[in-house]
Amino acid sequence: MAPRVILRDPVHGLLAFESEESRCVPRLLQTEPLQRLRRIKQLGVTSLAFPGAEHTRFSHALGAAHVMQRLLGRLRALHEALPYWQRVTSERAEDAISAALLHDVGHGPLSHLFESALPGLPHHERWSTEILLDPSGQVFQALSRADAGRPMRVAELVNGRGELPYLARAVSGVLDVDRCDYLLRDAHATGVRYGMYDLDWLLQSLRFGEGDASTAPPLAVDGSKGLVAIEEFLLARFFMFQQVYFHKSTRAAERMIRSALALGVSCLADGVALPDAPRALVVAARGERPSLGEYLDLDDAVVWQALHAWERAPHPVLADLCRRVRARSLWKTVELLDEDAAHPERALSIARDVARHAGLDPEVYVQLDVAEDTPFEEDDAAPVVVSAHGPPRRLSEASFLLGRLAGETLSKTRLVLAPELRDPVRRALAA
Amino acid sequence: MAPRVILRDPVHGLLAFESEESRCVPRLLQTEPLQRLRRIKQLGVTSLAFPGAEHTRFSHALGAAHVMQRLLGRLRALHEALPYWQRVTSERAEDAISAALLHDVGHGPLSHLFESALPGLPHHERWSTEILLDPSGQVFQALSRADAGRPMRVAELVNGRGELPYLARAVSGVLDVDRCDYLLRDAHATGVRYGMYDLDWLLQSLRFGEGDASTAPPLAVDGSKGLVAIEEFLLARFFMFQQVYFHKSTRAAERMIRSALALGVSCLADGVALPDAPRALVVAARGERPSLGEYLDLDDAVVWQALHAWERAPHPVLADLCRRVRARSLWKTVELLDEDAAHPERALSIARDVARHAGLDPEVYVQLDVAEDTPFEEDDAAPVVVSAHGPPRRLSEASFLLGRLAGETLSKTRLVLAPELRDPVRRALAA
Amino acid sequence: MAPRVILRDPVHGLLAFESEESRCVPRLLQTEPLQRLRRIKQLGVTSLAFPGAEHTRFSHALGAAHVMQRLLGRLRALHEALPYWQRVTSERAEDAISAALLHDVGHGPLSHLFESALPGLPHHERWSTEILLDPSGQVFQALSRADAGRPMRVAELVNGRGELPYLARAVSGVLDVDRCDYLLRDAHATGVRYGMYDLDWLLQSLRFGEGDASTAPPLAVDGSKGLVAIEEFLLARFFMFQQVYFHKSTRAAERMIRSALALGVSCLADGVALPDAPRALVVAARGERPSLGEYLDLDDAVVWQALHAWERAPHPVLADLCRRVRARSLWKTVELLDEDAAHPERALSIARDVARHAGLDPEVYVQLDVAEDTPFEEDDAAPVVVSAHGPPRRLSEASFLLGRLAGETLSKTRLVLAPELRDPVRRALAA
Amino acid sequence: MAPRVILRDPVHGLLAFESEESRCVPRLLQTEPLQRLRRIKQLGVTSLAFPGAEHTRFSHALGAAHVMQRLLGRLRALHEALPYWQRVTSERAEDAISAALLHDVGHGPLSHLFESALPGLPHHERWSTEILLDPSGQVFQALSRADAGRPMRVAELVNGRGELPYLARAVSGVLDVDRCDYLLRDAHATGVRYGMYDLDWLLQSLRFGEGDASTAPPLAVDGSKGLVAIEEFLLARFFMFQQVYFHKSTRAAERMIRSALALGVSCLADGVALPDAPRALVVAARGERPSLGEYLDLDDAVVWQALHAWERAPHPVLADLCRRVRARSLWKTVELLDEDAAHPERALSIARDVARHAGLDPEVYVQLDVAEDTPFEEDDAAPVVVSAHGPPRRLSEASFLLGRLAGETLSKTRLVLAPELRDPVRRALAA
Repeated sequence: MAPRVILRDPVHGLLAFESEESRCVPRLLQTEPLQRLRRIKQLGVTSLAFPGAEHTRFSHALGAAHVMQRLLGRLRALHEALPYWQRVTSERAEDAISAALLHDVGHGPLSHLFESALPGLPHHERWSTEILLDPSGQVFQALSRADAGRPMRVAELVNGRGELPYLARAVSGVLDVDRCDYLLRDAHATGVRYGMYDLDWLLQSLRFGEGDASTAPPLAVDGSKGLVAIEEFLLARFFMFQQVYFHKSTRAAERMIRSALALGVSCLADGVALPDAPRALVVAARGERPSLGEYLDLDDAVVWQALHAWERAPHPVLADLCRRVRARSLWKTVELLDEDAAHPERALSIARDVARHAGLDPEVYVQLDVAEDTPFEEDDAAPVVVSAHGPPRRLSEASFLLGRLAGETLSKTRLVLAPELRDPVRRALAA
Repeated sequence: MAPRVILRDPVHGLLAFESEESRCVPRLLQTEPLQRLRRIKQLGVTSLAFPGAEHTRFSHALGAAHVMQRLLGRLRALHEALPYWQRVTSERAEDAISAALLHDVGHGPLSHLFESALPGLPHHERWSTEILLDPSGQVFQALSRADAGRPMRVAELVNGRGELPYLARAVSGVLDVDRCDYLLRDAHATGVRYGMYDLDWLLQSLRFGEGDASTAPPLAVDGSKGLVAIEEFLLARFFMFQQVYFHKSTRAAERMIRSALALGVSCLADGVALPDAPRALVVAARGERPSLGEYLDLDDAVVWQALHAWERAPHPVLADLCRRVRARSLWKTVELLDEDAAHPERALSIARDVARHAGLDPEVYVQLDVAEDTPFEEDDAAPVVVSAHGPPRRLSEASFLLGRLAGETLSKTRLVLAPELRDPVRRALAA
Repeated sequence: MAPRVILRDPVHGLLAFESEESRCVPRLLQTEPLQRLRRIKQLGVTSLAFPGAEHTRFSHALGAAHVMQRLLGRLRALHEALPYWQRVTSERAEDAISAALLHDVGHGPLSHLFESALPGLPHHERWSTEILLDPSGQVFQALSRADAGRPMRVAELVNGRGELPYLARAVSGVLDVDRCDYLLRDAHATGVRYGMYDLDWLLQSLRFGEGDASTAPPLAVDGSKGLVAIEEFLLARFFMFQQVYFHKSTRAAERMIRSALALGVSCLADGVALPDAPRALVVAARGERPSLGEYLDLDDAVVWQALHAWERAPHPVLADLCRRVRARSLWKTVELLDEDAAHPERALSIARDVARHAGLDPEVYVQLDVAEDTPFEEDDAAPVVVSAHGPPRRLSEASFLLGRLAGETLSKTRLVLAPELRDPVRRALAA
Repeated sequence: MAPRVILRDPVHGLLAFESEESRCVPRLLQTEPLQRLRRIKQLGVTSLAFPGAEHTRFSHALGAAHVMQRLLGRLRALHEALPYWQRVTSERAEDAISAALLHDVGHGPLSHLFESALPGLPHHERWSTEILLDPSGQVFQALSRADAGRPMRVAELVNGRGELPYLARAVSGVLDVDRCDYLLRDAHATGVRYGMYDLDWLLQSLRFGEGDASTAPPLAVDGSKGLVAIEEFLLARFFMFQQVYFHKSTRAAERMIRSALALGVSCLADGVALPDAPRALVVAARGERPSLGEYLDLDDAVVWQALHAWERAPHPVLADLCRRVRARSLWKTVELLDEDAAHPERALSIARDVARHAGLDPEVYVQLDVAEDTPFEEDDAAPVVVSAHGPPRRLSEASFLLGRLAGETLSKTRLVLAPELRDPVRRALAA
């Protein structure tokens, strides 16, 4: 009997990996890089604004693998539309489930915050690839046990490439299992119900579009049943951006931590000793690349421990930042609208004068934060809408809503500043 | 305008503390002891078995305060049944909301695990009282700002005592706001839906029972509407015990960590230096009581950091335990039934022989775990059932289900042992 | 391509019948006997007490067929435990889905009320069989189109018999798809959340038990995962009985309508003309059996129309009953407890004296209503509990809860009487 | 003690009307016009497409009264912003709850279908007013029992007028309790989850805007918390239009029944006797206005009974329509896109030629159906967005989404035709 994993999940109810094709799951779960994902929260510092948002990348990885299993079931129900060589074999199914489980395995701590704070560091996709392809690593060994080609094929899928483009895009694309899971999971954990959408109906509405002779066709959406499912999926994502991912307290906390990490690295680079500095940071401060092992030692706890220790750092701005973050005394925001948003330099300059006047480092204590999202970008990879009668149509043509949103970008421009500066800055801006 | 806190919550949807009576909430949230609860998971190591169970005591504290607000609303709708001096005044309401928010403020890390691992240490209720009554502490100062008597009154409530017994029992009793929130929250986070019950209906079914001339009456339950609500509440709790709190992997992990902490303390007491040992442990190992400040420095991360560091401890059993916990290579269980459960010594002795034979410390690598719960204990504090016609009845009389469960105890007896011992132990037991 | 039906369902989300095996569903949905189920509410007069309970037997039939599809999926995942001849073939799957869809096709109007009001009438199971086997009927024709043996096999399954006992019991048994659907559907519609249970987990916990050489094994429940799922399922059912199916207003309305129908039939038998009397009643009043066509003309609307018309009946008691029911001026109940419940004759006699004294027909205006349910009866057909280690155990042994409930019967004894009699009867009983 | 009503509701969980202000609810529930709403489905024939959509206007009326109670609670929490004479007194609260309960009391059978089928008939709002103001009616008597001015005030509110415009618009406006309830209820019953929105958050986000000296201010939305709540509310409504209210089978069934009713009236006007014709139709066919009593005798069952009886009508087209509707052999649709939608006359004319050629009445068997909805029309009554800093902004300015949707109209143009015509018409159109 294949090893099995059956788990309760608050989002999908029941996660059951008990088939031959999913035997990779129990094996991969025993590896250290996957267990490490338990120590990295999915939404970084968001729990400072949404107290429920404590869920980890580990549960998300399991959820993504589960959605992949369901998607494979759906694809097979549509198989008759495809020639044999374009269908999902058992081997390809196991590749896809593995890729879904591993898609974020190289993620750094504190969501995307860590990698954006250390500009020289490779991106998490790069680390994922290294983890998958390192022959001495547990992940590689688990993957290659039954099939020596699997690590490479899974790494391709994780990067959105592969023999069957429709499967590769299901790992990384507009409608991928990553997004399918994280929207539901983030909504469940934060309590922001706007992020819910109807996964059953979305899967049911999938069809194969038209390919050419040489490649497998892309996935498409059935117009009569599925248009509203995809509209709602894209809007759910957009609502989550507006409500959660762009939340002012989250953005403020991120700015603070990013500044603290940058200051820490700069101290280290200047030869200042900092307590509990993670080895990867020390190496990065020397301008070198951390080893894979050093990188994998990083998790949320390691970074928080450093920030906690740095409350006693010799650099007063760094110490102040760290104390404020831990006591959740977060920076406040002033939203810029209309003209001020289009040309924020004026407001930023006024606010930094206020900071300077108050004896605070203007570059740190006043920052400009621009958050942008395009709810729907209709590129060639976007699914088309098919129907029994008539030719395929683009989503922006077939959908009233998406037609009005395609290519439009929401932008939030804010000054992020120490709380004691907010009122003076407001007054100065109004003057 | 009173300071306000309005938050998303995945369990109750919306938490709004914006009245005069709840102005304590925003103030208390700014204190370090409350922010510390963000760093203590509600269910300790349970996320090793239920990946969603990452929720913290911080969100639970907010939830309990919210349920208290709702309960106060209900009590006031029933007020006409009471003389004036037994009603909930604004002052008592603010006391009660504060007590609900603070009821767990002295909790140690890793749920109840920490305090059971260090037998000499005061219980968390005791620490809570100290935090509330320490005049130099932030919590005391926030509470006493408007009313010097509040810290003492809140401390009484947290310990289930107070001028109005019905209010005190709502903080700590069979039907308290703690339990009302944690059942829903644990169910939401683990995905074990059996823990859900109907809070709206439970609140609606409350009545005042009969008191005597001198004291306020206890809360009772309306027989025609409320019996099923309370049955379901008690069963929800019982299902959570069976499914989550007694889960074999959770119990196994707890046994391992408890052993590791005890070994750690014993090493420290023997003068063995251990890296990253929390100050409170070092003090406790000397047989002294940690200070309040040392206790408050403890959180989940501090303990996990110690366990991680002790993978390199000189004590081989300690190091082995710590490595296994972090890699989630947990101990397995063998459930004992019938005669073996009634007299587990025989099985334990056989299993320890197997361990000894395998060269493993039998006291550590084989343990006996007995988990017990009484779903419904009908004591004098249990609510009675009232109806418009006829005298009050005890729950066990009025309820078919509770009549059959009252005083009955579920007991799970298990051997908890290293995975490599399970099969040999099973064979030895069967022999 | 097979004909397909894809529907939104408020309970299961999405009902998709699109495989070869479920092509019977679209065909059967086009028959008049199935469309007639749209006109019969699942819970009869329950909407008088729970305004949401308007759902029909039509949606329940679809839901049961959906659960059967899911169950078949689960059985096939367990197939390897069975010899080939005991597995679910495509033919058997289509039989089972058809049987699930058709299991209630012979139901009379107003839930079970109609058949209990006319004692001579065949039970609905009998009518179902006739509908299935009538060669001139649409249902028979739809079933036999591809396979002449199907009507007979489906009729067997509907009656809980068949070649594979585990499949027959899934149509009609302790854990059948009928119950699986109606608990969730009734809970959804009434708002009584206690009726929810975890269908996913229940299906996942199924195993095959041990059969003997000659017959397929029965279904069993996996002890480690499934015990709580089945406990909760049985308790959900029990909670629904307590809260909904035994609700005092529902029972009162049922008593009233049953009396009205009986009086109506008796009038017709006496040759009194009644307006809008359904043909089936007229025939039954003559002591004859209605034809299948006459029976199928009955639905909720036809009965309500008769009751409405009979407000103008020459029989004053009948007219009064009908007026009260339509204006929802329902009878009230007096619950009998303890001794009064054990020997209700005394209370009934006192109450009827009060009625007589008030000039009301005592047999009609005061009735005794005894509602009984046994939450768990452990007979030979009950599933056993299996585990990887050790022999199968009975549910009452393996489950703490079910061990305490097995064979126990809840009984509610009530006087049901005209509202104007309630206070005088209460006084007379208390005297 | 005030009379009380406490009910389970599948949408809101618990409906409790037990205060002084809501004593109107139990009284009004005993009137015949409210009980009649039990016999009128909220969504008319929609259950032909969504089998769960059996919910009635009765449960919706209760739900709207419940939302009004919650809204009143919220308004009072905001009261301090208003001068005394603009606040919600107990009298105004009882008016508002009564109006919410009664807002649809004059509704005809089969949703809006009935009134659109008989063009001469007064609209349901008109009938509601008559019911409220008829001094001999039960509703008037229940309302005027404690306060002779109440019927008139409630009638004003039902029509969206009143002393406090913010309260009047809460009965009938963009954000009224009618819409707040029906979106959730229709979503719950159909299973179309897109209709869900976050009522808690919407209520919490309400503020008072700015009024002038003479009138009470309108309701506004808090920009920082509430914008997304109102966006989601408006989109939920729009999704329900796309998915449910405009569903092709529903629209087709409506067209069929409307034609049948029109043909029926025309037969009656021509002196043709039709069995079971409701009295109100007979009167209307004579060109007279039915009396209030005749109107109130109409409900869904009465119309379905007529349609069933008319299967034997002497008019063959009428009989055919009625037979098809009952057997759910509904008309099919051909959606017209682009140019065909802009100028549908060409397609209609081609399709009618096909019908004529097939010997079918072209006006009945082929119809043009244009369904239109404007998701967000920003008129003067739309709420504005307020914030602590800066002036109020229009919704279309403050919201990225609503700015792109304001004033835009979705239009669905379809040919609705007998199933046997669909393929020939498709071919003819493609030619």
